[in-house]
Amino acid sequence: MKAEIITIGDELLIGQVVDTNSAFIATKLNEAGIHVHQITSVSDNREHIFEALNNAKQRADLIFMTGGLGPTNDDITKLTLCEYFGVGLRFDPEAYKDVEYMFKIRGREVSEVNRKQADLPENCETLHNKNGTAPGMWFDVNNKIYVSMPGVPYEMKAILEEEVIPKLKKQFTLPTIVHRNILTIGIGESVLAEKITDWENSLAKDNIKLAYLPSIGMVRLRLSTRGDNKNILEEKVNKKIEELKQLVGEYIFGYENDTLEVIVGKLLKERNQTVSLAESCTGGYISHLVTVVPGSSSYYKGSVIAYSYEIKTMELGVDKDVLNARGAVSQEVVEKMASSVRKKFDTDYSIAVSGIAGPDGGTPEKPVGLVWIAIATQDKVYSKKCQFANNRMRNIQMTANTALNMLRKEILSTK
Amino acid sequence: MKAEIITIGDELLIGQVVDTNSAFIATKLNEAGIHVHQITSVSDNREHIFEALNNAKQRADLIFMTGGLGPTNDDITKLTLCEYFGVGLRFDPEAYKDVEYMFKIRGREVSEVNRKQADLPENCETLHNKNGTAPGMWFDVNNKIYVSMPGVPYEMKAILEEEVIPKLKKQFTLPTIVHRNILTIGIGESVLAEKITDWENSLAKDNIKLAYLPSIGMVRLRLSTRGDNKNILEEKVNKKIEELKQLVGEYIFGYENDTLEVIVGKLLKERNQTVSLAESCTGGYISHLVTVVPGSSSYYKGSVIAYSYEIKTMELGVDKDVLNARGAVSQEVVEKMASSVRKKFDTDYSIAVSGIAGPDGGTPEKPVGLVWIAIATQDKVYSKKCQFANNRMRNIQMTANTALNMLRKEILSTK
Repeated sequence: MKAEIITIGDELLIGQVVDTNSAFIATKLNEAGIHVHQITSVSDNREHIFEALNNAKQRADLIFMTGGLGPTNDDITKLTLCEYFGVGLRFDPEAYKDVEYMFKIRGREVSEVNRKQADLPENCETLHNKNGTAPGMWFDVNNKIYVSMPGVPYEMKAILEEEVIPKLKKQFTLPTIVHRNILTIGIGESVLAEKITDWENSLAKDNIKLAYLPSIGMVRLRLSTRGDNKNILEEKVNKKIEELKQLVGEYIFGYENDTLEVIVGKLLKERNQTVSLAESCTGGYISHLVTVVPGSSSYYKGSVIAYSYEIKTMELGVDKDVLNARGAVSQEVVEKMASSVRKKFDTDYSIAVSGIAGPDGGTPEKPVGLVWIAIATQDKVYSKKCQFANNRMRNIQMTANTALNMLRKEILSTK
Repeated sequence: MKAEIITIGDELLIGQVVDTNSAFIATKLNEAGIHVHQITSVSDNREHIFEALNNAKQRADLIFMTGGLGPTNDDITKLTLCEYFGVGLRFDPEAYKDVEYMFKIRGREVSEVNRKQADLPENCETLHNKNGTAPGMWFDVNNKIYVSMPGVPYEMKAILEEEVIPKLKKQFTLPTIVHRNILTIGIGESVLAEKITDWENSLAKDNIKLAYLPSIGMVRLRLSTRGDNKNILEEKVNKKIEELKQLVGEYIFGYENDTLEVIVGKLLKERNQTVSLAESCTGGYISHLVTVVPGSSSYYKGSVIAYSYEIKTMELGVDKDVLNARGAVSQEVVEKMASSVRKKFDTDYSIAVSGIAGPDGGTPEKPVGLVWIAIATQDKVYSKKCQFANNRMRNIQMTANTALNMLRKEILSTK
């Protein structure tokens, strides 16, 4: 069963908004065994939407649209769909209740503009939107399903997960696609490819596809296969993953949608241990990653973000003379930061980082991208010197990933 | 002059990677006066790439591709383009120098797999890639320009900005598009729309288009117009912006790509003032936003991330009895956090936040999404109670934006 996604909005075509909806929809459809053939972004324009729908229905059975459902005049998707299907509008009392509710929780009356949000094409089934005023719409026309959802990501996500996917599963018998992701860190894409050439070549006879997906200091390997019997597919793929572990196991840190911060969190929770941080060049980013994880308060106590010399001295006991002699970006300073914050916050581990994120602040001896990262435990403190590149945000991310991976290895090494 | 963007990669269609490249390319093309008609994402598949190219060249003069240029076997864009244009490969010594350099800085020899990165279609001009091993390619065939770039964002960005855009400007006379963005915070999309209805209706006669782009607690209004004379276009749009300011000026915090953190940074820098933070539920996210801004070390000194009760007491002097009686999410605690960190770090202002980000930790009296935000200055400390929604990351972002906007208003109120 083939699907296409059409995202509608001038803001996409002038680059003002990154289309994150398509990736979310594609993920959920793939999980449900629906193959996404193409994603198309078009403007808020009647003819363009018509053309995109006409093309998509040649290739796909299911067509998912987002965007253009707001209450304002630039949003034309709903009226365009009425025209496309040759139908008029009907007032939907159920949808109006949702609109009323959205206004009630904000303590306001429904405006005229928003009352119209409950006018829907005569031939659609209404998809309940609990987070906004624009209902989703489900059309079943000439054996093709068309679904239109709002462009606001969290409104779309709830409609897709709670309304659309269950409806699809009810209406269709879906095939089985198995994807597995193996996450590596600390090895480049091409070196990795050379190490696993023979293994990679062996995948074809099991009808397994491999993709390399590099990101910030990491490479994700994705194995995909499709068929009828989920157990057999999973067994084949798992066997290949076991083989892969023999080849490059030391670089594998997780699977599927694991992140370093989630994995580190699990390890700490299992061991009933805690962590604290002292950040300089990352300015709170590592703490943010750690605390994005729900429940992180059970293993994360807090951080000192010491951006100035003054705070490094005052809060983390870094010696002023050492700071002046060695500079803030030095082994001595970062190790002192790590051991101080660990003692002060009374945690089992700590991470400290100090570096030059750029674009300014580099010197010939200490260029932009130079970062020191330290780990402290009750027995020891040690650090690593890294040389990243020129991009500020990328340097911050590379530092965070490298630091979290050092902590992961440290936790694993003790037991 | 019309352009289309084709992003190539199975990872896009299974939703594993969000396509951020298209938005970047579209922004740069629009700035150069090139209208992006459509964005299409297709799989790493010969026939699919052919179909996308054939369709795009019917509609557009310029076709931009990203992805599928890596050294591994799943990347087929280069060979597919050879076939599409009916040409073979040539070895490009200049491109090979770039490949050699990439390996040299990592202290390694060029592998066989990577040597092939310098084999390029006979009919393309090479676009220098200073950040990776896959060169960009520029094809000029039957009065259409085809540009192929790597999918790794920072490699693509440098090639686009440093090679492609200058080449386009040299080769074509481009029309003028004027976009202006007005950024509002603290007012919902539909209330805003009602307040500016008459103004909105007046735009058509100046041939100006308006779009509403809501995001985390903000609404961006985008005005667009096109023509020949840039000065006249800008004058028309600026006049409309002045009118808008009369209507909803109090909600406008910036223009174009301004962010709250950049604006707050500029205000502090101009006034030679400093800020510190005490974060609980945002776990370092606000500090991260502040320090993503290059040069933030001149006005930001540091933060205490006080996730546990213990650290709130020990580092920020919050009274244990108050914590137990009122809870960490209370006016008393957040105001104490703000005044303590400001004094301790000796800054002109401070922000403190404490709340329940969710998904757990809510109670009937203090539901998920409840957040207290405080601002402290030398003379005073005050706070605001906010009730956000159920999504952890969204609550963190809403808190950050609300807090930075409170600080912005505070700075502006004193002079």
